[in-house]
Amino acid sequence: MAARANKKRSSKRTTQKSKKRSPARKPVSRTKRQVYFFGDGRADGRASMKELLGGKGANLAEMTSLGVPVPAGFTISTEVCTEFNRRGQKLPAVVKETALTQLKRVEKVMGANFGQSKNPLLLSVRSGARVSMPGMMDTVLNLGLNDQTVDGLAEQSGNRRFAFDSYRRFIQMYGNVVLGIPIEEFEKKLEAKKHAKKAVQDTDLNDKDLADLVTSYKKIVKSNTGKEFPQKPLDQLWGAVAAVFKSWNTPRAVTYRKMNDIPESWGTAVNVQAMVFGNLGDDSATGVAFTRDPSTGERVFFGEFLPNAQGEDVVAGIRTPHSIIKTSSKSGKPQSLQETMPRCYRDLRRVSDSLEKHYRDMQDLEFTIQRGKLWMLQTRSGKRTARAAVTIAVCMVREKLINREEAIRRVAPEQLDQLLHPTLDRSAAPPPIANGLPASPGAACGRVVFDAETAEEWAERNEDVILVRRETSPEDIHGMYAARGILTALGGMTSHAAVVARGMGKCCVSGCAKLEIDLERKIARIGGIEFGEGDVITLDGSYGYVFKGKVPTVEPELGGDFQTLMSWADKFRRLKVRTNADTPADAALARRFGAEGIGLCRTEHMFFQTERILAVRRMILADSSEERINSLKEILPMQRDDFFGIFRAMAGLPVTIRLLDPPLHEFLPHTQEESAALAKDLGLKDEDLRRKVEALREFNPMLGHRGCRLGITYPEIYEVQVRAIIEAACACAEEGIRTQPEIMIPLVADVGEVSNLRALTDRTAKAVMRERGKRIRYTVGTMIEVPRAALTAGRIAEVADFFSFGTNDLTQTTMALSRDDSGRFIPTYVEKGILPDDPFVTLDIEGVGELIRAAIRSGRKARPDIKVGICGEHGGDPRSIHFCEEIELDYVSCSPFRVPIARLAAAQAALEAGSTG
Amino acid sequence: MAARANKKRSSKRTTQKSKKRSPARKPVSRTKRQVYFFGDGRADGRASMKELLGGKGANLAEMTSLGVPVPAGFTISTEVCTEFNRRGQKLPAVVKETALTQLKRVEKVMGANFGQSKNPLLLSVRSGARVSMPGMMDTVLNLGLNDQTVDGLAEQSGNRRFAFDSYRRFIQMYGNVVLGIPIEEFEKKLEAKKHAKKAVQDTDLNDKDLADLVTSYKKIVKSNTGKEFPQKPLDQLWGAVAAVFKSWNTPRAVTYRKMNDIPESWGTAVNVQAMVFGNLGDDSATGVAFTRDPSTGERVFFGEFLPNAQGEDVVAGIRTPHSIIKTSSKSGKPQSLQETMPRCYRDLRRVSDSLEKHYRDMQDLEFTIQRGKLWMLQTRSGKRTARAAVTIAVCMVREKLINREEAIRRVAPEQLDQLLHPTLDRSAAPPPIANGLPASPGAACGRVVFDAETAEEWAERNEDVILVRRETSPEDIHGMYAARGILTALGGMTSHAAVVARGMGKCCVSGCAKLEIDLERKIARIGGIEFGEGDVITLDGSYGYVFKGKVPTVEPELGGDFQTLMSWADKFRRLKVRTNADTPADAALARRFGAEGIGLCRTEHMFFQTERILAVRRMILADSSEERINSLKEILPMQRDDFFGIFRAMAGLPVTIRLLDPPLHEFLPHTQEESAALAKDLGLKDEDLRRKVEALREFNPMLGHRGCRLGITYPEIYEVQVRAIIEAACACAEEGIRTQPEIMIPLVADVGEVSNLRALTDRTAKAVMRERGKRIRYTVGTMIEVPRAALTAGRIAEVADFFSFGTNDLTQTTMALSRDDSGRFIPTYVEKGILPDDPFVTLDIEGVGELIRAAIRSGRKARPDIKVGICGEHGGDPRSIHFCEEIELDYVSCSPFRVPIARLAAAQAALEAGSTG
Repeated sequence: MAARANKKRSSKRTTQKSKKRSPARKPVSRTKRQVYFFGDGRADGRASMKELLGGKGANLAEMTSLGVPVPAGFTISTEVCTEFNRRGQKLPAVVKETALTQLKRVEKVMGANFGQSKNPLLLSVRSGARVSMPGMMDTVLNLGLNDQTVDGLAEQSGNRRFAFDSYRRFIQMYGNVVLGIPIEEFEKKLEAKKHAKKAVQDTDLNDKDLADLVTSYKKIVKSNTGKEFPQKPLDQLWGAVAAVFKSWNTPRAVTYRKMNDIPESWGTAVNVQAMVFGNLGDDSATGVAFTRDPSTGERVFFGEFLPNAQGEDVVAGIRTPHSIIKTSSKSGKPQSLQETMPRCYRDLRRVSDSLEKHYRDMQDLEFTIQRGKLWMLQTRSGKRTARAAVTIAVCMVREKLINREEAIRRVAPEQLDQLLHPTLDRSAAPPPIANGLPASPGAACGRVVFDAETAEEWAERNEDVILVRRETSPEDIHGMYAARGILTALGGMTSHAAVVARGMGKCCVSGCAKLEIDLERKIARIGGIEFGEGDVITLDGSYGYVFKGKVPTVEPELGGDFQTLMSWADKFRRLKVRTNADTPADAALARRFGAEGIGLCRTEHMFFQTERILAVRRMILADSSEERINSLKEILPMQRDDFFGIFRAMAGLPVTIRLLDPPLHEFLPHTQEESAALAKDLGLKDEDLRRKVEALREFNPMLGHRGCRLGITYPEIYEVQVRAIIEAACACAEEGIRTQPEIMIPLVADVGEVSNLRALTDRTAKAVMRERGKRIRYTVGTMIEVPRAALTAGRIAEVADFFSFGTNDLTQTTMALSRDDSGRFIPTYVEKGILPDDPFVTLDIEGVGELIRAAIRSGRKARPDIKVGICGEHGGDPRSIHFCEEIELDYVSCSPFRVPIARLAAAQAALEAGSTG
Repeated sequence: MAARANKKRSSKRTTQKSKKRSPARKPVSRTKRQVYFFGDGRADGRASMKELLGGKGANLAEMTSLGVPVPAGFTISTEVCTEFNRRGQKLPAVVKETALTQLKRVEKVMGANFGQSKNPLLLSVRSGARVSMPGMMDTVLNLGLNDQTVDGLAEQSGNRRFAFDSYRRFIQMYGNVVLGIPIEEFEKKLEAKKHAKKAVQDTDLNDKDLADLVTSYKKIVKSNTGKEFPQKPLDQLWGAVAAVFKSWNTPRAVTYRKMNDIPESWGTAVNVQAMVFGNLGDDSATGVAFTRDPSTGERVFFGEFLPNAQGEDVVAGIRTPHSIIKTSSKSGKPQSLQETMPRCYRDLRRVSDSLEKHYRDMQDLEFTIQRGKLWMLQTRSGKRTARAAVTIAVCMVREKLINREEAIRRVAPEQLDQLLHPTLDRSAAPPPIANGLPASPGAACGRVVFDAETAEEWAERNEDVILVRRETSPEDIHGMYAARGILTALGGMTSHAAVVARGMGKCCVSGCAKLEIDLERKIARIGGIEFGEGDVITLDGSYGYVFKGKVPTVEPELGGDFQTLMSWADKFRRLKVRTNADTPADAALARRFGAEGIGLCRTEHMFFQTERILAVRRMILADSSEERINSLKEILPMQRDDFFGIFRAMAGLPVTIRLLDPPLHEFLPHTQEESAALAKDLGLKDEDLRRKVEALREFNPMLGHRGCRLGITYPEIYEVQVRAIIEAACACAEEGIRTQPEIMIPLVADVGEVSNLRALTDRTAKAVMRERGKRIRYTVGTMIEVPRAALTAGRIAEVADFFSFGTNDLTQTTMALSRDDSGRFIPTYVEKGILPDDPFVTLDIEGVGELIRAAIRSGRKARPDIKVGICGEHGGDPRSIHFCEEIELDYVSCSPFRVPIARLAAAQAALEAGSTG
């Protein structure tokens, strides 16, 4: 269900987003039900009503209808929460009225009376949002106790100590949750009492002690609030309901929602339910269970319980719970539920099995046994690891519980990331010393180095290194390759470091605010601790943590279930999945992950390699076209070899090669030393070189002299690149290797650029083919990454064989948002709710998406068979992939490690769209 | 006609542009006429057929039809030129065929025979494009002469010397123009002959000498081309026609077209016309005349002629021509045409008057008198100065020759710029030493200074200074104010220097490639000449020239005719014209030029003033919101005073104030010295300050932390600005001054930004109004300068009272084109025909314009009364103003000096759209 819930969530979010903008939601009306009863086999709600009843409420209703023993109660809907918070936190009178009616039914079903001394009904009041937000919101238990009913409870339970303990707990909980009194005030009194009584545990206190404590707790309430502790059970009830609704907006809940992409507008439901007690003696117990192992997915019943205890005791971990299942050959007396309460155990297994069958998903159950009777308090789809999610989905297909489509829907694509990278052994991890952004997943451990050269040197002598930089630039690429992980002080999720690291499948933590680097002294301060070159740190790129020293990591394991699930996904998806790869090694890796071609091969990364950069720099600083051509001649054979390797690795699959894209000055030296070295190499005076380099400096490189503008102003550069591509393809042909080169022109803004460069490409290709006596089938297309290209796509399609949406740059230009600089304000934007997400992570469908739609519409009109794909970071983002399916792209392209994620997301999107392949 | 031609040109250009993209033009077909006869009162063409016949051909046809004495001939259409150049420079057979037919008619009308010895017909072959391109293309005269016909000519004219002189000239002209032989080869022979004959002038050579020269000229042809000089007159004719068509693509013609925005696809026509001779004796003459004074516009007949001369003699300036009109009280013998050939003079006046009446415009005439008979060779609308254009247009309305609408159409708005700025006295100007871009018109002379501070200091002691910088930045503003002109090495037409200078109406030459500055030594090299601080240079911002030393300038004079024309324009236009002004002085100036409000008041320029910048810097570097608020408190009263002054100057007209827009780091010190000073002021260590400043550095400031993003992250900045605006408006109200503040939020990408900041604005304004006990009516709107804002304009309109299209930034983002960096490649783009214009000068209608249209559509749908204007540089560009009219903007806003231009352009646009106000 995790996957399903997730899927639902994402589609709901879209609706929600538009709702957010629309005028306020309709107020709760008398005609619509706001309070839903459940009990004794009958329920107003059902499992499908999660939006209205929250997950817990919907499942309580469903369980009740299924005949599962559930204490009776009622659910106040999420709409009331919205209404409540919109109306200055007032509970509408009509809600109170209806709740009272339902309360009567609860009394009847449970055979107890709320607020009466005789056989008093006690209630739990709990939150319950659409998706589980464990521990984020408030709960009040034992509600309905007062100075009178406590005696009734004592009488009914025959246990005065229990009654006063319950009352004490209630006052403390209510005082804290509803009245806002610090929990410590109560705990101090409890400790004082225990000290006075020389009691070690709470259980060492007797009924008298607890009655004393009740008295002093009530005094705490009085002195804190100026009022007596409310004795009227209905006042207690309305107070608790209001407190739960309010808790939707506590800072921790707000933060959790933000972290988990849960819209503020959802609200929480409130579940008011009859209390049952697991602490009425040894025939009572409380526990939690999973119908399968949530960590491995294995089909074993799994759970823990505590005899004579309340649920909170299990959570608090004060006593060590026992296993529900009999554990093999353990010495000592039998403790498992199976052994100690076999009837209850059988009931539990029966209920659990039927619930799993009913929900067709692994269930996470909470139960209480009150005097030998089993009560189910909650069932929900259990959270699980990625590994378990895959295994459970695949097994359930085998068990015929679900079909393959459902199995595909069950696994959240993002989760797969966990499976593909080494992970930190959490059990062995100390607290992190600093954190940054989880820029590229996985874990890595190594020695700190501060520059790419050292990284490469040390790596060559088999040292594991972590490259620690303020930020990275293209010339750090070789160092990033050499390093196990990258840590940067600046930059967001889509900074250079992050993008490149993800592309390499390398762990990266970016934007670590607590990192300061003193390059001269070669010292980094991370979270206040000094590290010199060579000191060891560990990164967790999945969570953005930095650790001192070595933390053990666990290698990933891609089991058969994973392969099975992926093969199913491949059957259902319509979108092709390609990869962004610049080297034969990346290409080979991506193919292992299932890539069906290269959607983006960046030629510039090849330029940065140590042995080539000099020729590249000479080319850039050339004073004449001839000089430039001479330097390019040195580069030609190297590029040809690169392409040959990539073509070979892709064995006939399409390879989209982007002609040179970045501004030339990116290739130039950035430091004094590098400059001096280059000047010497080129036989230039330092000063002259500096002037030349300075002249290439740009104010806004992103919008500057780059992309096809280089091809227009220096045609010889693109000529050499095209020549290298076609020569490599010819060489492949000679060895019998098929190739499908797709030559891509970047940063196009006008059809004239494409016509001009297409002519150059065709001319050059024809010349090479004539020289080699081979015929290569290639296509020529464009990146669509400039708004004007999208706006004039119809005209561009007349001269382009394919479009590839470069959504990184298209987002930058459409939103006027520099990827490298937006870290200063995007967090504030997301915090203030101005933007729902970082648009570099999830595609901005309203703005950028609109341009993409328009471009596809007019592009297909002009050239119906135009091939259309996406090669930005969004190509690997599941939510963005849904959009890609919706607009019927031909393929998405993403970094190798995201290929499986994209395959799964594409299958889910196809299932949703009804366009399965 | 200049204005009309211009207008026509611009509208045609649009059509042309789309044609350029479409498949090749239709080939010349047999069914369509390609050769147009004129002669003896009958003509196939007419004046309206300029596209097909070129200006000259169309007018020759028209004149012929009017009964004006014109030598007969025919015109080969411009379509043949296109066809010719497309077909590998071959003349279609069908064209030759038709030409021969028409040639027969010419022979008949002129009573002469082409290629015959008896009474030979000689022809002129001239180019003639749609618009005049004086001297740009080739001409061949006396065609038809050969070794036989020369004798016929001698006989017919009774002047053997004339016949051989004509033959000699023909061989030289044909040899040079058609056969490509350097003119010097012929001239050397001529000089040698003159030397040998001790002749001073050509006329000292007799018929024998000239016959000798013919022989040696023919040898030159043989030795250069390997072939004899063509003796067949028809071969001569086809050769000359082909040469004229080819001359459409000579480099100088291509350059001229580029400079004058003439599309390559227009082509030239060829006019083949019977020769008449002004050099057959003293009863012959040749001359040019204007029906009014082209310099002042005065209604006086004006012209010059040479007796016994050919047209080229007048042009060559070898002999000094005489005035046509009798000049008053000049000693010496009477020389004017009026006196020496009174009958011809009367004929000329009669013809001229009728032509001016017919064309209803001042005419530029060419005529020849052959043996007492007047022949008109050309009439066309005369080129004129801006002053003359205005005067002629206004006078012709008074004379009832044209109506007011026509008068408005007659003046090219761009021309007005000449009238508003001082201009260089061209007669006194030496050759320029370097040139750059004509970034801001006008002329200025002053001492070279290299920094803003010196500029200010020197200006205070009444020195005229020219600020010479590599580039300018916002902190040079005060120096730019102080200087008479600005010269920069970098930056295009829309660089900071250019934009700000135009805004100030200050002369500026930008992007002067031949300027190198050595700041340390305070030396500039301009065009290879060294200038120290204090050396004098002169700039001509209208043409982009730099001169050494002082060149006198002429102050502008805005006569009554100018005011009359502007008042007519105001009657016809629908668009309001506002100004971009940041100071009370600019505001007052713009009102004098007729501005109807401020469309863009940039608040940041106020921040740079010397006495404020420290507080601003303190604000930027503040560590906490409190510190920031404290610095802002210092700034508040200054901003309030600024706004008060502006409101007062605008006296109740609307004033759109843009909240702070540029990235904060623009305000920070850029040099070491400034940094050190600031560090001292702030009590910071140099190093700490450097770190803080460095942390604010951005990769792409254009797409960075600026505009409303500042307002979202530092609300206190916008709060203070809103407070200053409303406080100033309250202060005005107290003094009885009406105000219409329009508060504008910049760089909006999402409606959420607007809602958030609109709330902040309303909250702050309400608080101020409460404090002051005043009620101010203000509106809140947004810049639309980010593609996403245009794409989501419907949603934004729900919370914005107005849109102002910031087309500078919208062009940058839509085209991914940094204004400051595009100078490196935009020239290549325009040169290669990929872009028709610099999109920062003339709006890119296809891309940016499309976004604007869409935004207006959805904006008006959501809020039908939304006010919509434009405040980019395009607001002052006539062609862009036509687009603004077409999409029905409410107003355009431009720099003060462009307000009259915009008023006139808006009137023309309204006339064209039929939407006159």
